Amino acid sequence: MMEKPFTIEVVFTPLLFPVKVTSDPCIVVLADILRATTSICAAFDNGVERIIPVATTEEAKGMKEMGYLVASEQDGIKHDFADFGNSAFHFSNESIGGKTLVYCTTNGTRALKMSGHQGKTAIGAFINISALSDWLIGQKMNVEILCSGWKNMFCLEDSIFAGALVGKLIESSSFSTRCDSAHAALDLWNIARYDLMGYLEKAAHRERLKRLKLDDVIPFSFTADTSASIPVFENGEIRNVAPWDQSEST
Amino acid sequence: MMEKPFTIEVVFTPLLFPVKVTSDPCIVVLADILRATTSICAAFDNGVERIIPVATTEEAKGMKEMGYLVASEQDGIKHDFADFGNSAFHFSNESIGGKTLVYCTTNGTRALKMSGHQGKTAIGAFINISALSDWLIGQKMNVEILCSGWKNMFCLEDSIFAGALVGKLIESSSFSTRCDSAHAALDLWNIARYDLMGYLEKAAHRERLKRLKLDDVIPFSFTADTSASIPVFENGEIRNVAPWDQSEST
Repeated sequence: MMEKPFTIEVVFTPLLFPVKVTSDPCIVVLADILRATTSICAAFDNGVERIIPVATTEEAKGMKEMGYLVASEQDGIKHDFADFGNSAFHFSNESIGGKTLVYCTTNGTRALKMSGHQGKTAIGAFINISALSDWLIGQKMNVEILCSGWKNMFCLEDSIFAGALVGKLIESSSFSTRCDSAHAALDLWNIARYDLMGYLEKAAHRERLKRLKLDDVIPFSFTADTSASIPVFENGEIRNVAPWDQSEST
Repeated sequence: MMEKPFTIEVVFTPLLFPVKVTSDPCIVVLADILRATTSICAAFDNGVERIIPVATTEEAKGMKEMGYLVASEQDGIKHDFADFGNSAFHFSNESIGGKTLVYCTTNGTRALKMSGHQGKTAIGAFINISALSDWLIGQKMNVEILCSGWKNMFCLEDSIFAGALVGKLIESSSFSTRCDSAHAALDLWNIARYDLMGYLEKAAHRERLKRLKLDDVIPFSFTADTSASIPVFENGEIRNVAPWDQSEST
């Protein structure tokens, strides 16, 4: 049997990124399913030209004053100065088509900046999982899936996504894994996949979103393949590298 | 339905201990299944009076020079100056009964010292899981299960043990959990439990142990309830707090 040439590693929270094993060059896939990465895919589906991620409200406010469109919220409430909140449902082609969007996300941006030091970071979500998986196979590099987690803790929703992506990649002839986190993520995905909403009832983050009345976006966030976008973070900004015309792909 | 009074949290590696949620007072359970915690239980089963954990070879050597019995190894090879390696199979009642043992373990001691700052840390292993679980229920405090992991990374064997202990505790009327890591660990345990050896074939650590020819202790390490010891670390040393006579319990 031919050895598969590339490896996959899963990192359950950004705090564990410094002890990852895979060395450069590799592609990092960032997952922040119940906010940033799903929303970023949705923004590209709605025609945004590029996204500049920022980590703090102050940066977001400064960018607004410079004339940018800004998505920024706290606990689900859009900031007064911002044009949008952070939900995937806040974007339309009329409002963001062809424009630059500044997207403020504490967890997501911290993870992006951490992972971005070494090269490309792709934005992963259930909504673009097949497009992303096909693209990753074409890149011919090792892959690390970085879960944003919740305040640096392990969270179920990002880990299950990681497992779903591991599953897709090891089905190909390109990838294998010797990473315990990747095996665990895949096992969790295989438990969760046939009743995702039921499984995620126990996720702490989902409970928080419910309390904040932000759970309207949950079914959308766990629906596979509504997006053909492949957002990639490089040199401080995110652009869509999907190699086909978005308008024809949907 | 009456609310269960105590919570369980699982911390997958010592690097994540600083972001744990459970506040003091609580009892930490340390798990380092394929070395320290299984061996420590075995040492108490063989009558050791107390164990002093140390983190470095230098400390272990210094303690040897002071006249202590010392267990210390590197990559499975007993250090020349030491009396024992670190395996559960190295201890007998003749050699350690009634004595103080200095036990050198890098991962284990780091985790013990980290967790020990706040009070009691119990030593958890499959071999003492039922005795430990009963004792924890009697303590009437919140519980945190700290996995040693492998070089600060997530590892399957400690996480599966955490899941097994979570399962026992939430079956009682004392414990519930809202911790995503605890749910994940329990799910992994429920996949692994009916064929532990088969499941752990994929664990990276097991492969390392095989390479080092240290895998003789694996079946013993995953056999439940051969030990009635409840080793507890407090004030720099580990003692057995099992409330019955060890000689009668086996």
